Amino acid sequence: MPPDPRPIPLTSGRRAITSLQNDSVKLIRSLEMRKVRRETGLFVAEGASVLLTARDNGWSPRMLVSGPGADEGSTGVALQRWAETAGAERLDVSAAVLEKLAAKDNPQSVLGVFEQRWSSLPEPAAEPVGSSPMPPLWVVLEEIRDPGNLGTIMRTVDAAGASGIVLAGNTCDPFSREAVRASMGSVFAVPLARTDRAGLIALASGWTGDVAGTHLAGKIDYRGAGYRAPVLLIMGNEGAGLSEDVAAVCGKLVRIPMAGRLDSLNLAVATALMLFEIRRPQLSL
Amino acid sequence: MPPDPRPIPLTSGRRAITSLQNDSVKLIRSLEMRKVRRETGLFVAEGASVLLTARDNGWSPRMLVSGPGADEGSTGVALQRWAETAGAERLDVSAAVLEKLAAKDNPQSVLGVFEQRWSSLPEPAAEPVGSSPMPPLWVVLEEIRDPGNLGTIMRTVDAAGASGIVLAGNTCDPFSREAVRASMGSVFAVPLARTDRAGLIALASGWTGDVAGTHLAGKIDYRGAGYRAPVLLIMGNEGAGLSEDVAAVCGKLVRIPMAGRLDSLNLAVATALMLFEIRRPQLSL
Repeated sequence: MPPDPRPIPLTSGRRAITSLQNDSVKLIRSLEMRKVRRETGLFVAEGASVLLTARDNGWSPRMLVSGPGADEGSTGVALQRWAETAGAERLDVSAAVLEKLAAKDNPQSVLGVFEQRWSSLPEPAAEPVGSSPMPPLWVVLEEIRDPGNLGTIMRTVDAAGASGIVLAGNTCDPFSREAVRASMGSVFAVPLARTDRAGLIALASGWTGDVAGTHLAGKIDYRGAGYRAPVLLIMGNEGAGLSEDVAAVCGKLVRIPMAGRLDSLNLAVATALMLFEIRRPQLSL
Repeated sequence: MPPDPRPIPLTSGRRAITSLQNDSVKLIRSLEMRKVRRETGLFVAEGASVLLTARDNGWSPRMLVSGPGADEGSTGVALQRWAETAGAERLDVSAAVLEKLAAKDNPQSVLGVFEQRWSSLPEPAAEPVGSSPMPPLWVVLEEIRDPGNLGTIMRTVDAAGASGIVLAGNTCDPFSREAVRASMGSVFAVPLARTDRAGLIALASGWTGDVAGTHLAGKIDYRGAGYRAPVLLIMGNEGAGLSEDVAAVCGKLVRIPMAGRLDSLNLAVATALMLFEIRRPQLSL
C-alpha cells in the first residue's frame, strides 16, 4: 500500500489564470504522472457530463478548472455552484493554459481535480451494495495492464449493476486520465478496492458464493455454470490470463466458446460477456 | 512451429538500412497519415504473431522490416521466407530506425507493409463466408469514430464467427495503426466492406433475413429477438447511436437491459454482447 497522501494546501475562491507557471496548473499537469497521483492521492477528470456524474454520486472536487465560456449555461453554473459549496479552488484559465491541461484527443473545456477513493475489500459473504436489489457480484482484475480496458470495465460493471472491482497485484491505475476517460464517469459510481495476490487468494478461499474465473483450460461453458451469489468473478491479465495460484482457487473455471480463426477476445469484451451472463436472470427491460 | 532447416539466402530483395532518410523508411513513417494510406492503398501491421496471422490467412507483405535480431529464431526465419517468396522488399533496420517506425507504446521489432483489401458488400441473401458452417451474420458500423473500438470489434467478429464488417458513412480507418493493433491480427481474417448511408439503406431494405439495430428506444430485449439468418446487425456511432434514417430500416430495434446509474456501454462491448447473443445457438465448447 502506498503511504498516506501528502496534504495539498487548499486555496478557496475563484481566480483567473493565464500562466503555465502557476502552482495549481503545474500540479494538475504533474498528475499525468502515476507517481504524483500516488503521492498526492489526487486525480483529474474531464468534461461537463463526467463532472455532473461525479456530483450526482456525491463527490466534491478539490479544484474546478474552466476554460473560456465553460462557466456559462445551466451546466456551467451548476458546476460552479457545486465547486463553491465544496470550498474548491476554482480556476478560470485562458485558452492557452487549457490547451496544456486538457487531453490532446477530444479536449474538454472543463476539468476537475478529485481525491481518490479506495473501498475496502468485500466481505466473504458480501452483501448487496447500497440500495441495489441485485445479488452481490464483485469483479477481480488480476494484473490488468491496459487503462482503456480498465475504464471500459468500470463502465460495464456499472451497467451490469455489479458491486465493484478489486484490483489484484500490479495493475494499471484506475485514476489515470485514460482509465477515467474510458470509464465515462463510472469511476465515480463503481467501488474500487485493491490487494496483492496473497490477499486475493485469501479473499477467494474464504468466499461463501461461487468464485468463477475464465481460463483457456476451463471445462465449463460460461453460459451453463449456474453462478451462486455472492459471485466473485476473477479475470486475468490481457496476455497471460489468470496466474496458476489464482486459477487454483477458482471453484468454477469457465470458458467462452468461440468460432473464429484467432479465438481470442479483448479483456474488456470477455469481462462484459461474463458479467451479462451472470446477471442474465436479473436484467430485464 | 518447428524450426525451418533451410538457411535463408541473402537476396537482392534484402537491404540493411541505418538512415531515416531512406525512401522506404520515409514511406512507412508517412503511413501514419490517413491521407497517405488512402493514396497508396497500403498499411502497416506490427509484431511477429500478427504477421504470422497475416501469412496464415493468405496475405503477402509488400515490405518486411526487421530490427536487430528479428530475423532469428524459427519465427524470424519463417517471416523472412514468407517475404522472400512474396518478392517483398526486406529491410533490416538499425535500432535507431526501428524506434522511429515502431509504435511508441509496446514497440515490436518486426513490421510489415501490406496492400489494403476491401470486400464487396454482402448480397441481400448472404451466403455463409468461406468454409464457415455458421449462418451469415454481417455487422454494420455506422459512423464509428474510435479506431480502438473498431479494432476490438474486428477481433470480436472473428471470435464469434461472424461473416464480416460493413463500414457505413464517415468512419475511422480500419487500417490505421491503432485499429490494426487492437484487432490483434483479425484485420487479416475479417472481410471489410464500405458504403455510404444511401448504400446502407439500400442494402438493409433488400435484406432477406433480419435487420437488427440497437437503439435506446428499442422495445425488444436483445435476448428475445429470435434473429433469422442471414442477420444484418447495425451498430451506431459512439455518441449519437444509429441515425434516424438507418434506424427506420431496422426490422428489429433491440435494447440491452442495464442496471447501473449511467446506463451506457462502450460500443465494442455492446457489439460483442449482440454478436454472442445472435450466435448463442451456434456456439458451444
